[in-house]
Amino acid sequence: MYRNYTCGELRLAHVGQEPVLAGWVQTVRNHGAMTFVDIRDRYGITQLVADENTPLAMKELVDKLGREYVIQVKGTVRERSSKNPKIPTGEIELDIKELTVLNKAAVPPFTIQDDSDGGDELRMKFRYLDLRREAVRKNLELRARMAHVVRNYLNNLQFIETETPVLIKSTPEGARDFVVPSRMNPNQFYALPQSPQIFKQLLMVAGFDRYYQIVKCFRDEDLRADRQPEFTQIDCEMSFVKQEDVLNTFEGLARHIFIEIKGIDPGDFPRMTFAYAMENYGCDKPDLRFGMIFKDLTNIVKGKDFKLFDDSECVVGICVPGCGEYTRKQLDALTELVKRPQVGAKGIVHAKVNDDGSVKSSVDKYYTQVELGKWRDIFGAKPGDLILILYGEKERTLPALSVLRLEMGRQCGLMDRDNFKPLWVVDFPLLEWNEESGRFHAMHHPFTSPKPEDILLLDSDPGKVRANAYDLVINGVEIGGGSVRIFDSELQAKMFKTLGFTKQEADNQFGFLMEAFKYGAPPHAGIAFGFDRLVSMFAGLDSIRDVIAFPKNNSGRDVMNDSPSEIAQIQLDELFLSLVTPKGKS
Amino acid sequence: MYRNYTCGELRLAHVGQEPVLAGWVQTVRNHGAMTFVDIRDRYGITQLVADENTPLAMKELVDKLGREYVIQVKGTVRERSSKNPKIPTGEIELDIKELTVLNKAAVPPFTIQDDSDGGDELRMKFRYLDLRREAVRKNLELRARMAHVVRNYLNNLQFIETETPVLIKSTPEGARDFVVPSRMNPNQFYALPQSPQIFKQLLMVAGFDRYYQIVKCFRDEDLRADRQPEFTQIDCEMSFVKQEDVLNTFEGLARHIFIEIKGIDPGDFPRMTFAYAMENYGCDKPDLRFGMIFKDLTNIVKGKDFKLFDDSECVVGICVPGCGEYTRKQLDALTELVKRPQVGAKGIVHAKVNDDGSVKSSVDKYYTQVELGKWRDIFGAKPGDLILILYGEKERTLPALSVLRLEMGRQCGLMDRDNFKPLWVVDFPLLEWNEESGRFHAMHHPFTSPKPEDILLLDSDPGKVRANAYDLVINGVEIGGGSVRIFDSELQAKMFKTLGFTKQEADNQFGFLMEAFKYGAPPHAGIAFGFDRLVSMFAGLDSIRDVIAFPKNNSGRDVMNDSPSEIAQIQLDELFLSLVTPKGKS
Repeated sequence: MYRNYTCGELRLAHVGQEPVLAGWVQTVRNHGAMTFVDIRDRYGITQLVADENTPLAMKELVDKLGREYVIQVKGTVRERSSKNPKIPTGEIELDIKELTVLNKAAVPPFTIQDDSDGGDELRMKFRYLDLRREAVRKNLELRARMAHVVRNYLNNLQFIETETPVLIKSTPEGARDFVVPSRMNPNQFYALPQSPQIFKQLLMVAGFDRYYQIVKCFRDEDLRADRQPEFTQIDCEMSFVKQEDVLNTFEGLARHIFIEIKGIDPGDFPRMTFAYAMENYGCDKPDLRFGMIFKDLTNIVKGKDFKLFDDSECVVGICVPGCGEYTRKQLDALTELVKRPQVGAKGIVHAKVNDDGSVKSSVDKYYTQVELGKWRDIFGAKPGDLILILYGEKERTLPALSVLRLEMGRQCGLMDRDNFKPLWVVDFPLLEWNEESGRFHAMHHPFTSPKPEDILLLDSDPGKVRANAYDLVINGVEIGGGSVRIFDSELQAKMFKTLGFTKQEADNQFGFLMEAFKYGAPPHAGIAFGFDRLVSMFAGLDSIRDVIAFPKNNSGRDVMNDSPSEIAQIQLDELFLSLVTPKGKS
Repeated sequence: MYRNYTCGELRLAHVGQEPVLAGWVQTVRNHGAMTFVDIRDRYGITQLVADENTPLAMKELVDKLGREYVIQVKGTVRERSSKNPKIPTGEIELDIKELTVLNKAAVPPFTIQDDSDGGDELRMKFRYLDLRREAVRKNLELRARMAHVVRNYLNNLQFIETETPVLIKSTPEGARDFVVPSRMNPNQFYALPQSPQIFKQLLMVAGFDRYYQIVKCFRDEDLRADRQPEFTQIDCEMSFVKQEDVLNTFEGLARHIFIEIKGIDPGDFPRMTFAYAMENYGCDKPDLRFGMIFKDLTNIVKGKDFKLFDDSECVVGICVPGCGEYTRKQLDALTELVKRPQVGAKGIVHAKVNDDGSVKSSVDKYYTQVELGKWRDIFGAKPGDLILILYGEKERTLPALSVLRLEMGRQCGLMDRDNFKPLWVVDFPLLEWNEESGRFHAMHHPFTSPKPEDILLLDSDPGKVRANAYDLVINGVEIGGGSVRIFDSELQAKMFKTLGFTKQEADNQFGFLMEAFKYGAPPHAGIAFGFDRLVSMFAGLDSIRDVIAFPKNNSGRDVMNDSPSEIAQIQLDELFLSLVTPKGKS
């Protein structure tokens, strides 16, 4: 070992001892006769001193140390005259006796401090330096700890962690696969898994009973702000269970993580149907840290000659506590927000409750104070509250109001990162109509079981069929999702048919699963959690990039090692591939 | 839940209770008035009974059950009249009260029993049925348990499990990469990692101090009997350590696994230099479960007119205890073995020690009894022992004798699977000459540090340079290997030069690593264990396939889902790829 103590370990109790430390030079402060050096490793920072008693040659060596030099130092622990209560080693310092420079360092492109990262591009190019910053490393340590907590919990419940293949069969259903050409099977390709879905279901057929895996998955999608081409799931499946059993088991897991990592017991998770969530929050992942539940005014606002409302399928609003004094400018900004094309509302009608309980609205001339009083009562609005109302087609208006609700939560400071409000959203629709392909797509995936009582609707009104599918939502973020699976090969075949697969397509892509179901498939259900997202939420971060050691940018590139990159012609030849030049290039 | 007990849980204490079980029908034994059904799940087997007291309709339903039907059954626990001491539930049976067939099963292609697997091809095609066999499932359970034991040990030592990317940069050094075309970066490719080597070294540069990961790695090699295109490593790296620290840390890990999984403490692991292992065992992974250490006779057998010996660079042999009475036929078979082209010996000279201590040899006419007595003494051979001697070029003869030694160990029954003899092999050569490419290749990898005292030889006699590299060998199998790394960018550049890289090639492929080394790289070292191999050794298996849930065959195919497979033209178009037809195909 180059050390016998770490840089976070020495205390007053060690005074007089002569430990050896190794680490990086954080700072050198030359005060003439005395030089202070902070030495840093993963475990902490220790102050080194060279003073008038230090041999001159040693003092000179110390003075020449640069930032991020890697040094080994032997010294005598002594009590500091000026203590630093901010760090655990702040009561002592090391009087330098021996010093070895293990490696020099060029001046780093940014200083290694929590508040200095040189901007996104530099951070990513020099990710190995970025990772030296405590704030970043702590996120990765949290990630490791969370994975361990998850494993302990599931192992205790007799889940078997089982590795499933990474080189699998390509299936066009779902997102776009990354593919891997096979050299030994010319002109054929593996795919990288978007999830281990089929394998975990086969493990249930195999009688594994309880499976989990913390596993990398892959999607070749155009990357939105916070997506990565490779991401990590906590993937789980259980046999002989019903939906309620799955929810209880994984609510237990989530609660266990909260308790172990945050020291918080979030209590029982509420359960909310998809339909209820859409009606009351305008989205399937409501943020329950605050109220502002939607109230439907459609029936009471019509017929008063206010054309915008009269022509609207739906008039719906929220009450924002304490924002009655919003200025014209603030209200205009909100209107602008909801009128953006990606939100798509037509405008906002607003009203505020005065101190005397009367209501002042932007549509006063159409509605009497009695009528406006009804609005107030429906919202339960109090003096000083602001009522915001959207109108139009239901399908656009509810999601638009959801955007507005979240914005108001933000503006009112109701989205405290340390306040966690988990819930289960259940009873998702089984199918959703896809305009582009002109057919129904599976909302979750084609293996999701319809609710038994809705199976008859599969033929008559497929869009109405509800699924035994569920999402775990925390603070407006979908953290996990799963479903009870179809375990009957006939129902599975019917499902593929409903999804527009020909028998041949279904056989070709999923034949082996349906074949497997013929040999005694147990009832089973499962769930998968987005591990990157879960960690970033626990780390209090918006982006998943900071909980991934070596993330890719929005073009799927690793700017640190400049990949992907060109490969040699011989590699292409061996794979029986040739490149096609994209249009516009030469 | 479809059950409130598992099939391995009920005991005499439950007599009189009415539990609900769910599982697979293992057997149905119809004895006329009584029918016995064994119901199986992952946890065990329970006997169900329908008898004269069972309602007729129920009895008929029971009689119609087929093998591998999935059933749910409610019944009364009662004491068996004829107990089965072989299974934990053998004292009770369940008197069937309610029975539901959850899923029927077609007749499986082989019976789900430990001794029945239908042969390799069927097993793999119906892997989900193969995995139902207890013997197979137990291997996967062992694998999960071992992974957990490894994680606990390393977490306790403050190793941070860190996920490294799966989509990385392709580097031609080492084995052949699997590549992944990038759609967003046309005509560019990712590679799948052969190991996370560079990333773990960057994590050391980042100050992570101790890293590990149980991680999938990939090699596109022509598959030998027991190789898989994707395999799992326990990958580890430490900073501020020397070789001895790494050996101690991971000897601790290995010992911990032995104690936790096998209840065996294998004691301290011997350490053996590569040179010693080659001289005394003819290979770099000696099986220490038995002796038969090589004895060199070259100096004492020459000059006696025995031309075969006189013309040989090397005459070397082993003493096989108790095999003196081997027949002509047995000895001929051994000669045939060593003369096979892949072994390449010229023949065997043999000798046996008689009861009176005299030696009877196949070359009696060239050597006196006194001279043969010297042979006996060198081997320490006792009456009844067999001496086997090979001769020829040293480079071929030592490995050939290693093959013979292992064969004799096998024939003498000295390779007990429950006897574990671990050791460290150290001081590997840094480089090995590659005839094909006409240059030196890194024996371990290009980041391995030469022994400091050998660095000067890098210019004068590169083949003589020893590395700070080490292998963990157990029972003749390389379980893990690693090295102290180069952490100086200049030495790393020199190493690339020695390996025949131009500066441009080195920069292009590893520039970012050498760049990283400029910003303060700590001394570091690491190791990786072949997890599949380790588990298969602990499971007492020869093949790694049975410790992998869904393995591929020797052509890299998953015969269960028939992959790799062709992909759609649109997928190729999006990737800017076109297929080249292999010669001889149309």
